[in-house]
Amino acid sequence: MKIYGDMRSGNCYKIKLLCSLLGIQHEWLHVDILAGGTQTDKFLAKNPNGKIPLLELDDGRYLSESNAILNYLAAGSLLLPQDRYKLAQAQQWQFFEQYSHEPYIAVARFIAKYLGLPENRREEYEQKQTGGHKALAVMEQQLSVSPYLVGDSLSVSDISLYGYTHVAHEGGFDLSQYPAIIAWLERIKRHPNYISMV
Amino acid sequence: MKIYGDMRSGNCYKIKLLCSLLGIQHEWLHVDILAGGTQTDKFLAKNPNGKIPLLELDDGRYLSESNAILNYLAAGSLLLPQDRYKLAQAQQWQFFEQYSHEPYIAVARFIAKYLGLPENRREEYEQKQTGGHKALAVMEQQLSVSPYLVGDSLSVSDISLYGYTHVAHEGGFDLSQYPAIIAWLERIKRHPNYISMV
Repeated sequence: MKIYGDMRSGNCYKIKLLCSLLGIQHEWLHVDILAGGTQTDKFLAKNPNGKIPLLELDDGRYLSESNAILNYLAAGSLLLPQDRYKLAQAQQWQFFEQYSHEPYIAVARFIAKYLGLPENRREEYEQKQTGGHKALAVMEQQLSVSPYLVGDSLSVSDISLYGYTHVAHEGGFDLSQYPAIIAWLERIKRHPNYISMV
Repeated sequence: MKIYGDMRSGNCYKIKLLCSLLGIQHEWLHVDILAGGTQTDKFLAKNPNGKIPLLELDDGRYLSESNAILNYLAAGSLLLPQDRYKLAQAQQWQFFEQYSHEPYIAVARFIAKYLGLPENRREEYEQKQTGGHKALAVMEQQLSVSPYLVGDSLSVSDISLYGYTHVAHEGGFDLSQYPAIIAWLERIKRHPNYISMV
């Protein structure tokens, strides 16, 4: 099994973290996203949407979209809820992540950390703060009543949201106003075989 | 079972369409999204993220995010693939829909159809065209080699992407350059118990 990714991307780190937690052996192939590695003809033949992470199975089949990959790899493990409603809740948080969280927090981080907050992106960066704090507030509300996003144990949804939340400060988000999120980040870090982003 | 939605939203229509195809009885509660119906204290108590569609189970539990609701309702039916890889592919398309399709095509449609393409949103509308066509090209590539997004039969991923693709012209997208998409739209419309958006 091969995984194409760039560890600077939270979407890619999610997969690496899950593989570590579950002890899933794989070959990691670095694709330099900042150097246009996802837009070459060779890569686009693997994933026409031109995005990483990308999973290549041993039989040559591909799978893209970080959360679809997570759920595929977590099948049969304790990280993928068996209960129908809990499984739906995990997916709810994953779709929330891709629509209401990542486009704000990950993009603000990208503009600040990798582009150096250039003047022509500053307005966009500022706009991202509002949406990002809204997403963090929704998470804070849930994590104030349950230790993980879906009940009492770690699930794929926590991995999905951990990816960019734990580096949200790099996008200008001060997490000190979200104590339940901070406690949840620490809870995840204490899991056996946790690995950090860098 | 109650579903809170507004049929002008493709995300809500997806749920209505799936319920019709599968014969799922439910009570539909209209929430006027344009009049701020998702931002009232009463609604935010049901879904802190302030979005529709929202599912309320008979025991009072809630579930948000259109694709999580679809997958929950489709469990055990032919619309949710049993095969692990096909299920992952269906989710891949659903995450693609929320990240790479909806933010362009649905938002362009909203600006044009519901806001009347005001001058101060015209630049944003134009920018949405590029991303929307990119998403349509990715779909066209898949639908040129398989009748449905995941192989030979209708799945939740087709419902997810049908929602806004079949009204993409309302967002300024000319689908005539995507013959495989047009054939797929017609294929979906021919399913027993198909219902239209209005």
